[in-house]
Amino acid sequence: MTRAFSGIQPTGDIHIGNYFGAMQNYVKLGRQLGKQAIFCIVDYHAITIPHEPEALRRRSFEAALVNMAVGLDPEQVTLFVQSAVPEHTELAWIFMTQTPLGDLERMTQFKDKAKQHSVLSGLLTYPVLMAADILAYKADTIPVGEDQVQHIELTREIARRFNGRFGEIFPEPRAVHAKDALRVPGVDGQGKMSKSKGNTLGILEEVGEIWSKLRVAPTDPARLRRTDPGDPHRCLIFDYHRLFSDPALTAMVETECARAGIGCVDCKKFLMRGVERTLVPIQDRAAELRRQPDAVLTALETGAREARALARQTLEETREAIGLLRTVALD
Amino acid sequence: MTRAFSGIQPTGDIHIGNYFGAMQNYVKLGRQLGKQAIFCIVDYHAITIPHEPEALRRRSFEAALVNMAVGLDPEQVTLFVQSAVPEHTELAWIFMTQTPLGDLERMTQFKDKAKQHSVLSGLLTYPVLMAADILAYKADTIPVGEDQVQHIELTREIARRFNGRFGEIFPEPRAVHAKDALRVPGVDGQGKMSKSKGNTLGILEEVGEIWSKLRVAPTDPARLRRTDPGDPHRCLIFDYHRLFSDPALTAMVETECARAGIGCVDCKKFLMRGVERTLVPIQDRAAELRRQPDAVLTALETGAREARALARQTLEETREAIGLLRTVALD
Repeated sequence: MTRAFSGIQPTGDIHIGNYFGAMQNYVKLGRQLGKQAIFCIVDYHAITIPHEPEALRRRSFEAALVNMAVGLDPEQVTLFVQSAVPEHTELAWIFMTQTPLGDLERMTQFKDKAKQHSVLSGLLTYPVLMAADILAYKADTIPVGEDQVQHIELTREIARRFNGRFGEIFPEPRAVHAKDALRVPGVDGQGKMSKSKGNTLGILEEVGEIWSKLRVAPTDPARLRRTDPGDPHRCLIFDYHRLFSDPALTAMVETECARAGIGCVDCKKFLMRGVERTLVPIQDRAAELRRQPDAVLTALETGAREARALARQTLEETREAIGLLRTVALD
Repeated sequence: MTRAFSGIQPTGDIHIGNYFGAMQNYVKLGRQLGKQAIFCIVDYHAITIPHEPEALRRRSFEAALVNMAVGLDPEQVTLFVQSAVPEHTELAWIFMTQTPLGDLERMTQFKDKAKQHSVLSGLLTYPVLMAADILAYKADTIPVGEDQVQHIELTREIARRFNGRFGEIFPEPRAVHAKDALRVPGVDGQGKMSKSKGNTLGILEEVGEIWSKLRVAPTDPARLRRTDPGDPHRCLIFDYHRLFSDPALTAMVETECARAGIGCVDCKKFLMRGVERTLVPIQDRAAELRRQPDAVLTALETGAREARALARQTLEETREAIGLLRTVALD
């Protein structure tokens, strides 16, 4: 692993499922790889489905802010907005000319989304832009969810085909799944936490609001009275303890729940300690960044310049390889 | 008519059919509009069908050289290579996200080409790049052949849809057909001159070689003997006289042919005067440019900078309108 690339959806609306899934993994990657950990807020992907301009602009900013607040340090890693690096769309065009139409038509995500939206061309061609995002940096490591594995396979195929046709330029990237990516349950106890189900705890949500949600959250359904012993392994609150609480407290509530030593309300109050310890510093940093939006934008500008320096080099090699006439020192 | 845009295929292999059709019209447009006549050597279109890198590079250069030799003065007009202005592919991506897939699938040229080549994605999406080529400059006048009219209509539709959705940015361009675009017959007398039929007279072809082709070219088939009167209106050589010869000579051969005053060989020799007068200066200029390739490249570089200045302004408006976060002064 020498260089990782991650696309970040432009949304500031991040819940603890995202946090304990992708985001903590990003922070770890950033510590390991420094500037070779490349994080790109993918606004040119976001417009492949109908969007509102002002909402997109706000969400792109929020995505930067939230990721910085949770610990992606733009001085340590490479963090930028996709549309600030036009090499992505240029390389996407080049790859598009080399990619059989059938390869795009058989993408599962395209077929699924084509059912929900009127089919716009960008929805079909978006995996080619994703391949360009990755290959512009010759990234070898791509942390993704299961739903993106097919697109990474296509990216590998695009790299292979290009190399075979025009000479070895692109490494074949590898999809990696964060080992500690957790399936965080929703606060309604009805499966995975997800924005569409409305069962989330937002990482920027006020602690009081989170308490209101936890207070009424279901626990072990078999524990009807305070004096009944509970089964922490059938309780959502215990899942949260494992995310938020230190091992000693987690062990304590596990034992005490099972022998009715504590009640569910006590257990939830204990949980709130870890919730506060985790989220309040993030929320404080977010508030601080929000007071200085120019600092966020400047960080993204610096990131875009760093990213462009890499992407331009790849584009120069690519343009040379496919036979474009070099007439201009592109600046 | 305030700004015209023309895409020039990257080929140096230009025949007198191209010359008396599109190219003379380009030169005229350049005289009328100066820098507002924008000529773009479309290398990013050329790769939508399989290509050889070195051939593409050479043909892009030749296209610039030949067009300069026939009279497109890069100091007077705007002449550049498409891939030197990455705003084309960026705007193409934006338009792709707004264009129904069905609009591209129903393009006649796509359906035709899809029969000849394995279908690559760029073949489907190429009309969107063409729309971006035109709209990046807000050009209102597009000199094109009949085969491109459907693509211009799509461009208008893309402009309309974008304006309706995000605010008035793009004018709807108009396709214009050069009034003096002539259907130049091939030297075999078998219909239109065309590279695929091998019946061309190249504008850079040696005059001796052109004479060899004309010498054996068919004339009025009813004129079997020198003493038979001919019908110039059934003779290919007379068609060429109307292109190359001055009105006095044209009138003379018309009369003399019809009363057997001159023979076909005489008539062809007369034609060679005009051929030489037209082609030799072009060939001399081409040879001169070929001796100084850096001058050609520098002219294209200057052209690309002029074009980018315009395209960037459009892209800035477009990016603002669709809600991209402005983080970086793109340079």
